[in-house]
Amino acid sequence: MKKKVAVLGATGMVGQRFVSLLNEHPYFEVTSLYASKNSAGKKYKDAVNWVIEPPIPSYAKDVVLKSFDERVEEDIVFSALPKEVADTLEIDLAKEGKFVFSNTASHRFDPFVPILIPEVNPHHIEAVKYQKTEGFIITNANCSTTGLVIPLKALMEKFTVKSVFVVTMQAISGAGINGLSALLIQGNVLPYIEKEEEKIESETRKILGEFKDGFILKSLPVFARANRVPVREGHTEVVFVETDADCEDAKLAFKNFVGIPQEISLPTAPEKPILLHEEMFRPQPVLDVNSGKGMSVSVGRIRKNNGFLTFTLLSHNTIRGAAGGSVLNAEFALKEGFI
Amino acid sequence: MKKKVAVLGATGMVGQRFVSLLNEHPYFEVTSLYASKNSAGKKYKDAVNWVIEPPIPSYAKDVVLKSFDERVEEDIVFSALPKEVADTLEIDLAKEGKFVFSNTASHRFDPFVPILIPEVNPHHIEAVKYQKTEGFIITNANCSTTGLVIPLKALMEKFTVKSVFVVTMQAISGAGINGLSALLIQGNVLPYIEKEEEKIESETRKILGEFKDGFILKSLPVFARANRVPVREGHTEVVFVETDADCEDAKLAFKNFVGIPQEISLPTAPEKPILLHEEMFRPQPVLDVNSGKGMSVSVGRIRKNNGFLTFTLLSHNTIRGAAGGSVLNAEFALKEGFI
Amino acid sequence: MKKKVAVLGATGMVGQRFVSLLNEHPYFEVTSLYASKNSAGKKYKDAVNWVIEPPIPSYAKDVVLKSFDERVEEDIVFSALPKEVADTLEIDLAKEGKFVFSNTASHRFDPFVPILIPEVNPHHIEAVKYQKTEGFIITNANCSTTGLVIPLKALMEKFTVKSVFVVTMQAISGAGINGLSALLIQGNVLPYIEKEEEKIESETRKILGEFKDGFILKSLPVFARANRVPVREGHTEVVFVETDADCEDAKLAFKNFVGIPQEISLPTAPEKPILLHEEMFRPQPVLDVNSGKGMSVSVGRIRKNNGFLTFTLLSHNTIRGAAGGSVLNAEFALKEGFI
Amino acid sequence: MKKKVAVLGATGMVGQRFVSLLNEHPYFEVTSLYASKNSAGKKYKDAVNWVIEPPIPSYAKDVVLKSFDERVEEDIVFSALPKEVADTLEIDLAKEGKFVFSNTASHRFDPFVPILIPEVNPHHIEAVKYQKTEGFIITNANCSTTGLVIPLKALMEKFTVKSVFVVTMQAISGAGINGLSALLIQGNVLPYIEKEEEKIESETRKILGEFKDGFILKSLPVFARANRVPVREGHTEVVFVETDADCEDAKLAFKNFVGIPQEISLPTAPEKPILLHEEMFRPQPVLDVNSGKGMSVSVGRIRKNNGFLTFTLLSHNTIRGAAGGSVLNAEFALKEGFI
Repeated sequence: MKKKVAVLGATGMVGQRFVSLLNEHPYFEVTSLYASKNSAGKKYKDAVNWVIEPPIPSYAKDVVLKSFDERVEEDIVFSALPKEVADTLEIDLAKEGKFVFSNTASHRFDPFVPILIPEVNPHHIEAVKYQKTEGFIITNANCSTTGLVIPLKALMEKFTVKSVFVVTMQAISGAGINGLSALLIQGNVLPYIEKEEEKIESETRKILGEFKDGFILKSLPVFARANRVPVREGHTEVVFVETDADCEDAKLAFKNFVGIPQEISLPTAPEKPILLHEEMFRPQPVLDVNSGKGMSVSVGRIRKNNGFLTFTLLSHNTIRGAAGGSVLNAEFALKEGFI
Repeated sequence: MKKKVAVLGATGMVGQRFVSLLNEHPYFEVTSLYASKNSAGKKYKDAVNWVIEPPIPSYAKDVVLKSFDERVEEDIVFSALPKEVADTLEIDLAKEGKFVFSNTASHRFDPFVPILIPEVNPHHIEAVKYQKTEGFIITNANCSTTGLVIPLKALMEKFTVKSVFVVTMQAISGAGINGLSALLIQGNVLPYIEKEEEKIESETRKILGEFKDGFILKSLPVFARANRVPVREGHTEVVFVETDADCEDAKLAFKNFVGIPQEISLPTAPEKPILLHEEMFRPQPVLDVNSGKGMSVSVGRIRKNNGFLTFTLLSHNTIRGAAGGSVLNAEFALKEGFI
Repeated sequence: MKKKVAVLGATGMVGQRFVSLLNEHPYFEVTSLYASKNSAGKKYKDAVNWVIEPPIPSYAKDVVLKSFDERVEEDIVFSALPKEVADTLEIDLAKEGKFVFSNTASHRFDPFVPILIPEVNPHHIEAVKYQKTEGFIITNANCSTTGLVIPLKALMEKFTVKSVFVVTMQAISGAGINGLSALLIQGNVLPYIEKEEEKIESETRKILGEFKDGFILKSLPVFARANRVPVREGHTEVVFVETDADCEDAKLAFKNFVGIPQEISLPTAPEKPILLHEEMFRPQPVLDVNSGKGMSVSVGRIRKNNGFLTFTLLSHNTIRGAAGGSVLNAEFALKEGFI
Repeated sequence: MKKKVAVLGATGMVGQRFVSLLNEHPYFEVTSLYASKNSAGKKYKDAVNWVIEPPIPSYAKDVVLKSFDERVEEDIVFSALPKEVADTLEIDLAKEGKFVFSNTASHRFDPFVPILIPEVNPHHIEAVKYQKTEGFIITNANCSTTGLVIPLKALMEKFTVKSVFVVTMQAISGAGINGLSALLIQGNVLPYIEKEEEKIESETRKILGEFKDGFILKSLPVFARANRVPVREGHTEVVFVETDADCEDAKLAFKNFVGIPQEISLPTAPEKPILLHEEMFRPQPVLDVNSGKGMSVSVGRIRKNNGFLTFTLLSHNTIRGAAGGSVLNAEFALKEGFI
């Protein structure tokens, strides 16, 4: 018996990924799709401007979209809501007893809301017990943060990490379907993404921190610079880590890294959370973004210099960094008995 | 003594070209810039998201933007208004005695409004005398139409043209600053542009037709297919023309083509309205779009087969096909005594 | 018992597609990979600059590459040879009794060599009986021709077609791995592709013609213009067809078109050779190139005007238009008893 | 009376920039163009695949190309030679008494050869007096190094700099006309550029070091990561500098920085070696690459965190970072009496 789930914000970039990834999911069955007033009442296939390569799943095509102010029947909710709607709606849903798995930044720093990546900070899920609502909110990290903390965690399991510098080269899909004008990015680099650097810096410290009656941020200097590049999918990040790990240490740590999702074989968990590349010209978005069905982080170009380890990572921003991350969180919460 | 002019819709793609092309113009001096309510009251440099390569001219930086509902003082108005505003505002302005040079499609098919390209249909300017307003509206053609009719006119001066097929590969700047999402066009071809094909087909017949107390459309079958390609500036068009001209005829016709703007040396008129390329790999947007300061149409790859002459043309869509075309129209109207 | 096959030119763009498409093929097993002298002797994984998204199949990784002058043991040969090698080597192989399925243009117009697309001209395979060699050569068409003749055939089964105009917007993968400099195509359109237009025009007439003791070219004027656009995979073509079919006729003809490969369920045959799109903005390379695993031709934007039917098609240039086409030809030849 | 100069390697990317920048130069007159054997004997316009936007200057069109093994008559030589030719030819020319201004990496670390950027290390030109040849070789830095050391120098004039981390996003023109396949970079990021990181690290230390009877490298840890992005011209670099300068210090240092070329008004010197941007989304290649005619380095996004100052810079890789840099060096050497 599959659990019924609703997808909120189903027509956007991340919503489309939810609709696609939840197709024939072993645990979950999508029974409602929600969108803004403009789309509500229309069939999904008529309202959506479908922009991802896997075609619209049959199950979704003729679903009539509900509006955000309609009551949600399902117990489990995947949220790809715009921030201004999520600010209150996600809390209302949690109060009504819903289990909300959210992509939105709204509640990532609420007192007992975890930013969960089950390979990295599985115990943070305990925080939901402190949420004063019948249901709960579990968020996943910003797309750039997600790619970064997975290899950082692999290093920190065995080595000291003193500081982190990261420069991102982010894909246009991260801005949503209509979030970035072609004229601005065509053949160009944009040297700034609003609020992205702050998110990477603060979320990394929270995810890598502890939870004991409350979140204790990791005392780790993180210095992020976010750029947009003309790539469709996949955020590339160059990372400098002040650490005692040398190149071979780091390679082993990356190669052998697994987490609970791998151990308990969650359906969306990739066999390898980190794919290590030895070739000089990898990882590349065009060739590697879909590794592990978009759930593996590809890491390469490992080098050590002057006390700093450096590497380049690539992560699928709308799968691992968004909808896929939420689906994995829901699988994890279900199997661990939180739902 | 320069004539004072206003630019309406000054913050958009075409508006920015107006502001740039009218910098140190020998006939005109921009004294007001108009924008939508959101921008009105701000300094131009603060309201505009400047996206073209020549920097904002000094004269414009600190101009405080006026709103469309404020009275226009200047006699000459360059309009890059959105269609829904232009529908009524351009007519109101003409009634008030303004000479409106418009880029908008709103009035191109009004009874006595010419779609003017002074090299092609200079006599169409006579139509403004029939406009029942103190001032007048002169429009320029759609950006794709402009590039097409100039070489067609060169051919038709000496040869018979029976039908025209045209396939466009249009630049993203044609959609405006925020008109096209990067996600949709990145590494892609979009096989359709709304209303573009109809515009090319109908405007071509009007421009190449006659004016005698009214416009008589040219009886010429034109069959257009419009595509969007990931190019920043410059519309490329492949044209098949059913004609008695052979390749050498056509080359001569293109090479020697000049119009009144060249004869009377209008400041914005390019020395050569048509630049003929003999190399196989030309014209190309990256190398040729700025030919003649963006006012020349580049033509190449001329071939004859089966009764059809074919060639490839390239035209700067926001200069010759938009703001530059309007400025040339105003220069022409002024020198011919219509202002 | 699978048939052993060799792939010649295995490290190039089309060679990589062969290696990928023949992975776990139900009829064929790749037992040798051939490359130029520079690569011969190396393991495939070390010699190849793998540029397609599906990873190198395990079977191929450690295969030691043979050089073109080494003897071929296998009876069936897939050739992605450079033209200058194919000119003589493919003939030598046919003389030795090999069944050569070639992507190269070298022998497409040899007297009894068919350009075979089994949905379109299956009977042309009869020509191989006239080849004066123990084995034979079967070629597939140029990548752009392939996408064009499939919908043309669908029309011609029921309607008259008098002339064809086609404008292509071709992907960079068509030029091979190193065939096109990034500097030339980045944000650009190249208005010419060497020899492409002649190939489209002549191959179309041969494929749509008859075979009776020799090939009789179809008397059909075809006028092609080939352009390169910054798209990774997938050739888009805008086609004007002088025909008595109207839009609804054409849609039905496209939708219902099937050929022998579908009837006898060849493994590489797509369920639908032609995928009809009704949405205005389809087909698009980014969304549709992999339809039918890259073997379906997507057709959309059907319109009739002035005696001409027009439509836009999209075809995967290195699958349907190259390696996939050859594999389908080999499946067809095997099932029809020619091997 | 202008000095006669020769350009070696005149058909390549950098050679074309030389030919363009030396057009109507106040000090220099190009009297010979040299190219490889394949091109020698042809007219320049027939041999060159011209890929930059300013058209071929008239003076160059009909110059008959000489081959590298022909004697050079001119005293001043601009070299854009491939490394394997430059290795010996540049030395031979210096021995013959020629003043060689080279873009090639061959001799940058020869004992008394300066890597000269006249705003940064003008005194390094003294080294040429120690070269045991009648003429001399003066090199300019790698394109990425050039953009980096100019703002570093501005900081170091007033503040302490302890270490530097730099991540580049480099344009495709840096790879030369045919140096980078479109298939590899289209919509992609390549996480590696051969030998680039080592060049940035070592050249920076040499340029910022001292010359006293020999070069004394600056003891400055520099850690570089080089990426290729789909941008036509302009290298973007994100820099982290461990320094005591705060944001306002750095802005002032950048804004006020000038060097000898500005003081003595060399024709190719930009008014401002560093252009400071305060807007969040600048600098961008598309809008800013041609600042100061391609000779200014644009710097923006200045931020301080955790002891590290960070900023983003943009520099024209084939003008300031190549041909323009050499021309400036020659102007400087001439005015300072070294020629």
